[in-house]
Amino acid sequence: MSNAVTRAETRIQTIEGGITAPAGFRAAGVYAGIKPPTHAWPLDVMLMTADSPVSAAAVFTTNKTQAAPVLVSRANLEKSGGRAKAIVCNSGCANACTGNAGMDVTRATVEFVASHVGCRPEEVLVASTGVIGVDLSLQKVKDGVTKALAVLSRDAHHNAMLAIMTTDPFPKEAAVRVDTSAGTFHVGGMTKGSGMIEPLMATMLGFLTCDAQVEPAMLRKALAAVTRDTFNAITVDGECSTNDTVFAMASGASGVVIDEALYPALEAGLRAVSKELAIGIVRGGEGATKLVTMRVIGANEWAHAERAARTIANSLLVKTAVHGGDPNWGRLVAAAGRSGVPFELSRASVRIGGIVLFHEGQPHDENAEKAAAYLSGKEIDIEVDLGTGGSEQATIWTCDLSAEYVRINADYRT
Amino acid sequence: MSNAVTRAETRIQTIEGGITAPAGFRAAGVYAGIKPPTHAWPLDVMLMTADSPVSAAAVFTTNKTQAAPVLVSRANLEKSGGRAKAIVCNSGCANACTGNAGMDVTRATVEFVASHVGCRPEEVLVASTGVIGVDLSLQKVKDGVTKALAVLSRDAHHNAMLAIMTTDPFPKEAAVRVDTSAGTFHVGGMTKGSGMIEPLMATMLGFLTCDAQVEPAMLRKALAAVTRDTFNAITVDGECSTNDTVFAMASGASGVVIDEALYPALEAGLRAVSKELAIGIVRGGEGATKLVTMRVIGANEWAHAERAARTIANSLLVKTAVHGGDPNWGRLVAAAGRSGVPFELSRASVRIGGIVLFHEGQPHDENAEKAAAYLSGKEIDIEVDLGTGGSEQATIWTCDLSAEYVRINADYRT
Repeated sequence: MSNAVTRAETRIQTIEGGITAPAGFRAAGVYAGIKPPTHAWPLDVMLMTADSPVSAAAVFTTNKTQAAPVLVSRANLEKSGGRAKAIVCNSGCANACTGNAGMDVTRATVEFVASHVGCRPEEVLVASTGVIGVDLSLQKVKDGVTKALAVLSRDAHHNAMLAIMTTDPFPKEAAVRVDTSAGTFHVGGMTKGSGMIEPLMATMLGFLTCDAQVEPAMLRKALAAVTRDTFNAITVDGECSTNDTVFAMASGASGVVIDEALYPALEAGLRAVSKELAIGIVRGGEGATKLVTMRVIGANEWAHAERAARTIANSLLVKTAVHGGDPNWGRLVAAAGRSGVPFELSRASVRIGGIVLFHEGQPHDENAEKAAAYLSGKEIDIEVDLGTGGSEQATIWTCDLSAEYVRINADYRT
Repeated sequence: MSNAVTRAETRIQTIEGGITAPAGFRAAGVYAGIKPPTHAWPLDVMLMTADSPVSAAAVFTTNKTQAAPVLVSRANLEKSGGRAKAIVCNSGCANACTGNAGMDVTRATVEFVASHVGCRPEEVLVASTGVIGVDLSLQKVKDGVTKALAVLSRDAHHNAMLAIMTTDPFPKEAAVRVDTSAGTFHVGGMTKGSGMIEPLMATMLGFLTCDAQVEPAMLRKALAAVTRDTFNAITVDGECSTNDTVFAMASGASGVVIDEALYPALEAGLRAVSKELAIGIVRGGEGATKLVTMRVIGANEWAHAERAARTIANSLLVKTAVHGGDPNWGRLVAAAGRSGVPFELSRASVRIGGIVLFHEGQPHDENAEKAAAYLSGKEIDIEVDLGTGGSEQATIWTCDLSAEYVRINADYRT
């Protein structure tokens, strides 16, 4: 039971900072003219480096329309066996749907960074976010990398964060200190997401760092598990972009070695940072006025709970009802019913903010007024019991749908 | 090749009228106090009868949350072997999520109608549309049926149509005359759909009549085929209700007997009426300002084309782009890419109103201005080629997403 002991002894505390909170990383964010100079966040090239090539892992978009940086980063991680020394990211141009020319720019970027930070090309990872179908200027990226190399530091995490943003209403970073029986390590991260007006498409990017020592396979496993429950458990509008990527790097600089016994501590640290970042994306969703935690319980399989929660969270009728403060349990039940997973109406229940509105197939509209008052708040908890008697559950975070969302996304981009 | 000959000789002409355009049917629509008297369409009980029990078929919602009338009608059709003499429908109350009491009301309605029109209970079909989770008054339904029986006529199809409406902006009926080598028959129909503010949920109801003589199994087959391409090929917001139902009845009064050779003429007649009704639902979608015909081509299987077309048609980013007149091919390509079907970006293409915006993986933004001008119209054709080289295709009709949709659906229902 060493895991249980370790877990019990693990203590996670929020600390200041972002991707450079863990030791062994430096970062920079600079302006290279890829975004217009009038942009709300006028930095557009981010570079982050480890002191030497370290363990790295990634989760990429499942969209079959994949941008050049996604294709190149996946190939590089395979070739390097999960090692990387640098990640370069530009905002303002997604380098997606740009054909062979786009691939050439990304490959040349990788070569350029590798030669300047001193590693093999496959030890460089790349991300881009911004407009689809527009060519990315290699010269501007090179200029940005050159500038960034000159100012790389552990203090520049805020500029790094600004350089990955597009239409995000606010920057998002987080870090934690993880105390274990085997010592203390740190996890940090930053993310950008769900602005869609300037690009043709939203992109969600996540960057996680850690100063524990972790083998690549274990880092991959932890990142996959954590992403499932955090970055992949949020939805603003059900879209999935051509560039979505979450990277993780582990420097080992803390000296804490993650073995099987310490694995839960690693996962818990990554989870704490990822959850805060992911929820930040939802809070910053276009036109969002409320954060909704949609929990589905009573499922026989996690996948059923997840699918039902996602269907309900993406329902326009549910999202507009939440926006309007309408405790409309009928829309929740109907969305669960069409989600394609086992559902027993006669034993199903709905709670909003803990207030029972539907229980074992019977309406409780006497509580509607109380629930409407609760819905006037900014943080909304909704729970739907599928009524199949299972003990599996899943949570999806989403936001309401406002007329502002439509206004933002209907504006002609030119 | 008798089918081909028959098909060649079949001629379909639009005629006036709706469900009573085919011979052998009467209908009525009356007010029984189920809707508030101030409702925009103040009739709420519809009764339609055949002169004697005739062939009948239905397609029901796939939602696992099914209302009492859906459960009872399905059971009745099974028991009768596909025969019915009457259909009764109320608007203003969906009789969904109402437990055993709701089932009792529907069963008693069936008994009451059967005893008055002179048939077995299983020869009565029922539909309801309106608020979920509210008890339906059996007395009001009986009062409505009694009133309706007194005014049943071939001329009352317009009142029948008004009695099934909830928040529809306009009534929808259609009829055609089908001339074949074996004689002339008629198909008529009416539908209601996609208002969602007053009920907790939209309901789509369709009623089709025909005066050809058709065996129940053949009517079922034709209804399933036609519904796939019409009522099931539309989407306003991706929702699927607890009460969705399409009924078809065939009186045989024309004397035209549908055999294998004439089957294509039956399907063509039902298809013509269903397509017009289905497109009418989209045109009347909440907040809709444009009708979008979303065609996906180049698929290896129809199901792939259909899934991609539905994913694109339900994409909020696509729907808002259409609303804003933005020829945003990137959103189309990205939605196709995340639909989960085979997709080859390097050979994919996008045309809006026939204007090429993306061809074999390359942007053609020089046509963007022309496409933007086209998008200022009210009827928008969009075509996406999946690039997999197949010859299968599918069409989904949808509408744009406006701020008005949000306003309608966010209004608190009391």
